[in-house]
Amino acid sequence: MALINEHYLKLQAGYLFPEIGRRVREFSEAHPDKDVIKMGIGDVTQPLPPTVVKAFHDGVNEMADAATFRGYGPEQGYQFLRDAVAKNSYQSGGVDITADDIFISDGSKCDAGNIQEIFGHDNKIAICDPVYPVYADTTVMSGKTGACMANGYYDGIIYMPCTEENGFIPELPTGRPDLIFLCFPNNPTGTVATKAELKKWVDYALENKSIILYDAAYEAFITEKNIPHSIYEIEGAKKVAIEFRSFSKTAGFTGTRCALTVIPKELQAYDSKGNAYAVNNLWNRRQSTKFNGVSYPVQKAAAAIYSEEGKKEVREIIAYYLENARIMRKSLAEAGYKVFGGVNAPYVWVRTKNNMSSWDFFDKILNEANVVGTPGSGFGPSGEGYFRFSAFADRENVLEAMERIKNLP
Amino acid sequence: MALINEHYLKLQAGYLFPEIGRRVREFSEAHPDKDVIKMGIGDVTQPLPPTVVKAFHDGVNEMADAATFRGYGPEQGYQFLRDAVAKNSYQSGGVDITADDIFISDGSKCDAGNIQEIFGHDNKIAICDPVYPVYADTTVMSGKTGACMANGYYDGIIYMPCTEENGFIPELPTGRPDLIFLCFPNNPTGTVATKAELKKWVDYALENKSIILYDAAYEAFITEKNIPHSIYEIEGAKKVAIEFRSFSKTAGFTGTRCALTVIPKELQAYDSKGNAYAVNNLWNRRQSTKFNGVSYPVQKAAAAIYSEEGKKEVREIIAYYLENARIMRKSLAEAGYKVFGGVNAPYVWVRTKNNMSSWDFFDKILNEANVVGTPGSGFGPSGEGYFRFSAFADRENVLEAMERIKNLP
Repeated sequence: MALINEHYLKLQAGYLFPEIGRRVREFSEAHPDKDVIKMGIGDVTQPLPPTVVKAFHDGVNEMADAATFRGYGPEQGYQFLRDAVAKNSYQSGGVDITADDIFISDGSKCDAGNIQEIFGHDNKIAICDPVYPVYADTTVMSGKTGACMANGYYDGIIYMPCTEENGFIPELPTGRPDLIFLCFPNNPTGTVATKAELKKWVDYALENKSIILYDAAYEAFITEKNIPHSIYEIEGAKKVAIEFRSFSKTAGFTGTRCALTVIPKELQAYDSKGNAYAVNNLWNRRQSTKFNGVSYPVQKAAAAIYSEEGKKEVREIIAYYLENARIMRKSLAEAGYKVFGGVNAPYVWVRTKNNMSSWDFFDKILNEANVVGTPGSGFGPSGEGYFRFSAFADRENVLEAMERIKNLP
Repeated sequence: MALINEHYLKLQAGYLFPEIGRRVREFSEAHPDKDVIKMGIGDVTQPLPPTVVKAFHDGVNEMADAATFRGYGPEQGYQFLRDAVAKNSYQSGGVDITADDIFISDGSKCDAGNIQEIFGHDNKIAICDPVYPVYADTTVMSGKTGACMANGYYDGIIYMPCTEENGFIPELPTGRPDLIFLCFPNNPTGTVATKAELKKWVDYALENKSIILYDAAYEAFITEKNIPHSIYEIEGAKKVAIEFRSFSKTAGFTGTRCALTVIPKELQAYDSKGNAYAVNNLWNRRQSTKFNGVSYPVQKAAAAIYSEEGKKEVREIIAYYLENARIMRKSLAEAGYKVFGGVNAPYVWVRTKNNMSSWDFFDKILNEANVVGTPGSGFGPSGEGYFRFSAFADRENVLEAMERIKNLP
């Protein structure tokens, strides 16, 4: 008899974005005349930059000609793209990461979800609260947790609350986790970690032989000096950290699909007898067996962001979204909200007024301002009373949405 | 302390294709003047058909314009592609599969590898021998086996030998497996199963509440009438079978990446108390959480194979490879080899002469004919003494390779 993976039954059904979708749909059906502005899901709106588009077409043309056609590519990604990433995203900033450390993939969500496969069942996982739901959900699916408890936490996960009190930077956990998910610039709070703060984590991981799973999907939005763009800027991090990066938010690839994961060759994990193994080899075996590489024209398009023209175009797109974030921060503050994030991140994190719950605030601004955002409580219990606005929107919509929110009674 | 998944340590290091690559490289370095013809890895050589290329470019152009740009797509695939697959690959053949049953993905290897995630740890897995190595490797990685034994079998897997005696069609196993991997047209033997043979399996699965994982990646190569193109042509199969299909071999997408998995909504699996669950929902949860959909221009390109022009172009490509297979069958038979497959499949499966081992034959034709094929033993112990030639090659290379093999002493 075919048996299901019963751990799936522990997953909480009411996933955040479908619930948002349902409420928006109901509202729009009841009020077809209302122009609803969506600032909920963190999806880009600007088209692919011209240099990327040209390279994408070139890649398609190569696939159209027997002389230049490419069949199966390397599961790890084409050398030209791994080299370009190593050079432009790491070495140019003085970070010693080489092409061999880099695995090209079709998405950071996939990699952050699949990475636990190469680690053993008995690892303890630490996750921030609030946070992107994929880390916890995939931990549940892999069978490392008990049930979801009344407080919204899964039994067996070490949660690290991120609150106004600690500046939304988690404190070192007491439970000695083996795998620690961190995300900076943070989704949903928009917070960044300083070098000193990241050093605390790297030192902790070195001391405990833990591994940090560092999600840097929003790295391109960092504007302030002295904020690390990569965890490998911290000494010793290559021994204890895996870094996830993505072309999604950087260059508008959410629908085009390309990302990368860095696993330095010196990063080790252990068997139950304490023998050390290179994690890079394990992930290579996983990817070679269960993945077949990213579409060639997509990799060619991704590499184009590292040309001089491509870099300029990407900077312009990032600047566009960051200007949205600046407008949002300013407007929301003027409207009397306490505002966080949005300086080094495309997310603005807002405290509701009068201790209104996240979902009540969602309903209020949907009904009264016809604006959609994301309830903070959807990212975890510590997000209750907060709300996330995404800067991935068209400027005129941002201006209009902010005007409507300012005019709310 | 971060612990590795120790099941990875059971995987046999000497993976087939790297070993082939190593021997070919050594030969070429020692004999730089020799023109080596590669008929080993099953990778296509013909470029993308023109209709597909046009749609691919159109998709890229849409991504270049804010008015038509697409961000995150549905994790299950775009409706236009799911509809096209349902209509053209199933309903047109009288098979009642609908768009809701279909999940678009970036590869059958990925899906066939990942599918076990939604099933429980206690399932018994049945796998043919010889077979595509991914089924066994991912079973090992998921922790369902013991060590690899002296005979090359992993302890805990139910192997189903496919031999000349049984016409390379496995017999029903005695061990009551819960999940059964089948692949027709078969890789590596090129065999197909008749309706009667598949009915035997569907009936077995219905009786035992097992699930068949049916890999139909080479379906487009079926030429003979009355050979089922889909397992769903068998009554009751929608209750017990998951089908994997791919655009890779059909339309030259090995480097472009698009595939699909069919999980009929009535297909159920069970928890330990015997409660039934729709497997479609479980896979949907898996894909929504750990996958982010296939690149939009790629999906647009894939859908183009269902246009009238696209169908014609695909038929021509398939016919080209099948003509290669016909030439190979004829030449190899004339050269005195016993030949199988190659009629409804792009693979020709050959018995070596004088009981020569697969690897000895590999070395012989590499050294004496400068032709590369795949040793049958690399697909499993029952492949010993056989050899796989791939018809995915350019015609002139096929003709030259066959001439050289015919002239071998």
